[in-house]
Amino acid sequence: MNRIAYFDNAATTFPKPEEVYLFTDKFYRECGVNVGRGQHKLALTASSLVTDTRTLLLNLFHCPNKKVVFTHTATEALNIILQGLSIGDYYNIYISPFEHNAVTRVINHLQSIYKLNIHTLAVDKNTFIYDLEKIKYQFAENKPNIVVVSHASNVCGVVAPVDKICVLSKAYNAINVIDMCQTAGLVDTDLSSGAIDFAVFAGHKTLYGPLGVAGFIFSSAVKPLPLLYGGTGVDSANQGLPETIPERYEVASPNIMAISGLNAALKWIEKVGIESLFEKEKENHKRLLEVLKIFGNIKIVSPIDEEIGIGVVSCVFDGYSSDSIGQILNEHDIAVRTGLHCAPYAHEFLGTLPSGTVRFSVSYFNDDSDFEKLQEVLEYIEDND
Amino acid sequence: MNRIAYFDNAATTFPKPEEVYLFTDKFYRECGVNVGRGQHKLALTASSLVTDTRTLLLNLFHCPNKKVVFTHTATEALNIILQGLSIGDYYNIYISPFEHNAVTRVINHLQSIYKLNIHTLAVDKNTFIYDLEKIKYQFAENKPNIVVVSHASNVCGVVAPVDKICVLSKAYNAINVIDMCQTAGLVDTDLSSGAIDFAVFAGHKTLYGPLGVAGFIFSSAVKPLPLLYGGTGVDSANQGLPETIPERYEVASPNIMAISGLNAALKWIEKVGIESLFEKEKENHKRLLEVLKIFGNIKIVSPIDEEIGIGVVSCVFDGYSSDSIGQILNEHDIAVRTGLHCAPYAHEFLGTLPSGTVRFSVSYFNDDSDFEKLQEVLEYIEDND
Repeated sequence: MNRIAYFDNAATTFPKPEEVYLFTDKFYRECGVNVGRGQHKLALTASSLVTDTRTLLLNLFHCPNKKVVFTHTATEALNIILQGLSIGDYYNIYISPFEHNAVTRVINHLQSIYKLNIHTLAVDKNTFIYDLEKIKYQFAENKPNIVVVSHASNVCGVVAPVDKICVLSKAYNAINVIDMCQTAGLVDTDLSSGAIDFAVFAGHKTLYGPLGVAGFIFSSAVKPLPLLYGGTGVDSANQGLPETIPERYEVASPNIMAISGLNAALKWIEKVGIESLFEKEKENHKRLLEVLKIFGNIKIVSPIDEEIGIGVVSCVFDGYSSDSIGQILNEHDIAVRTGLHCAPYAHEFLGTLPSGTVRFSVSYFNDDSDFEKLQEVLEYIEDND
Repeated sequence: MNRIAYFDNAATTFPKPEEVYLFTDKFYRECGVNVGRGQHKLALTASSLVTDTRTLLLNLFHCPNKKVVFTHTATEALNIILQGLSIGDYYNIYISPFEHNAVTRVINHLQSIYKLNIHTLAVDKNTFIYDLEKIKYQFAENKPNIVVVSHASNVCGVVAPVDKICVLSKAYNAINVIDMCQTAGLVDTDLSSGAIDFAVFAGHKTLYGPLGVAGFIFSSAVKPLPLLYGGTGVDSANQGLPETIPERYEVASPNIMAISGLNAALKWIEKVGIESLFEKEKENHKRLLEVLKIFGNIKIVSPIDEEIGIGVVSCVFDGYSSDSIGQILNEHDIAVRTGLHCAPYAHEFLGTLPSGTVRFSVSYFNDDSDFEKLQEVLEYIEDND
């Protein structure tokens, strides 16, 4: 197989740092046992690794006093939170215009149980800027009970001013949930604020860990009802789940293989430095925009300023469906994602329904050859138009 | 660290076949992308691997016409099934005396919603044999709506005659769920029968794959309501989940790293042959029982005939708590598990509440040195009694 120029990093970053591959393999070979469910040496070593990984995450987010709950996917984390929060009829739930189906399909399910008022946070359609004045007005008009915001859109990379939004909604005692799947480990974020109740992360995206580990960070002041019931390795005689955090939400065997990979990834992020990572990603984002802007047949439906968004850029091509562009790029060994990216409301906002967009997303690891190849193939597409 | 004699295989088999480590690392390095959510070559390769793994599983269980749903843990699978089945007040739910908290805690949760009649299938306390005559009588007395049976107990290894039980309950149109966490890939099982509605497996136990992949096999004649809502990579504009199987239950990014490991494990099982695997495990089980039977201070609370159970053996030690025995064994580099093993009802049956048992569990990979070391350390414990 030829080398692939990989621009599908918003789906999962690829490749991972060499340290992640090495340590995952080594740890699973040497200590791939069941954590916290035995007292033998291997189990204790595995257990320490999990504790260390929680500490690394809390350090990354500057919130040593909060708690980390590991789940297997960010979707599971969002389901635990959103299905588990106390909700009643006529609650006002605010979401950004960019929410993923991992949020909107859960809310759709909740709407089959409760009469909910769903509101979309005001964002300017031209500038992609969250309109905080309007949002303030929205909140005053319909007091927010729950606010869910993607820190960065997985479709067009728009970054939300989550701190400011959460402070505004906290004035109404709203529960604030931020989805950091596209920003954790990339955008330096301080989660110590009491305004952010839940922050969801995915290990396999901007955190550069493997698939199979995700979770949420919270203060445990608000405890959602559990969604999954099962063994926790503690208090086993009790048929209710333990009240202790994280055990209450971490049923079943923890995925020590994935957690070991995340551990290595977090150490790599610490070593490289989150600022350097972000700088490199910004550079690649800028480079991507420069390439895309060359072509008159490409309409960028994302911020064209790398200061407003992260390196996730959606485009539509004159005269071609997104899928056919994806097909041509694929034939030329360029990996992108096309369609709705599991976020149909974002496309409603962008005016790109029903066929969606061609999404290019960069990581720390894209290099000159990727951008050169992309430019070449886009030239080929333009020429054959 | 010294080599550990590992007798905690019921928690997770360790080590894995070399093929599993090699292929997991190689595949994740070469193709660690997001399945089915892109059309690029890497995504298609990953997608084929997932499809191939489903086929290997269906072949292993002789049921090519059934469906495989991948989850991240067997607990997740049991929650999807048990929380999603149609249930009403006064339903008769039968469980074996050996169910894990992944079953009983879910049922406990369901009891907070419905008035349920929970019955325990009749098993002889001396012989550990399921009493099919009595079970027939139980079913006639209280018609079963749902039956959940561990194919083999994770505490004492007792194997249930699942086929016979499911046929008996199917006469009443019960929904039958079997938990194969301790038998999948070990006990050759034909799941083609219509009597078994759901069979749950864990990739990381007797299937010798990594943590992070599990699931259930079913005919999709009975479709539980979904438990988790989110992106499926298909039909994204629809806010309901797709009706198609497996997409309806497989929300979020599939764990391609774990699935690749399971793929390699299934090929290894095919290569070695499930009969040879079972023979070797039986041999190790027999060997384990021989060692344990030497000691007058050890009471085996499991079948002492390797024909009735699999190689999961619980013991209590005269004058010692299970935890202190675990501690001594650990100091001598022997890994076991002590306590309730997340299955308190099994201990109620065995009379080993509240402190539980010392559980020894073997795999294909235990060797002479493990049994020799075990015998030595047990002699040391007896001498110091």
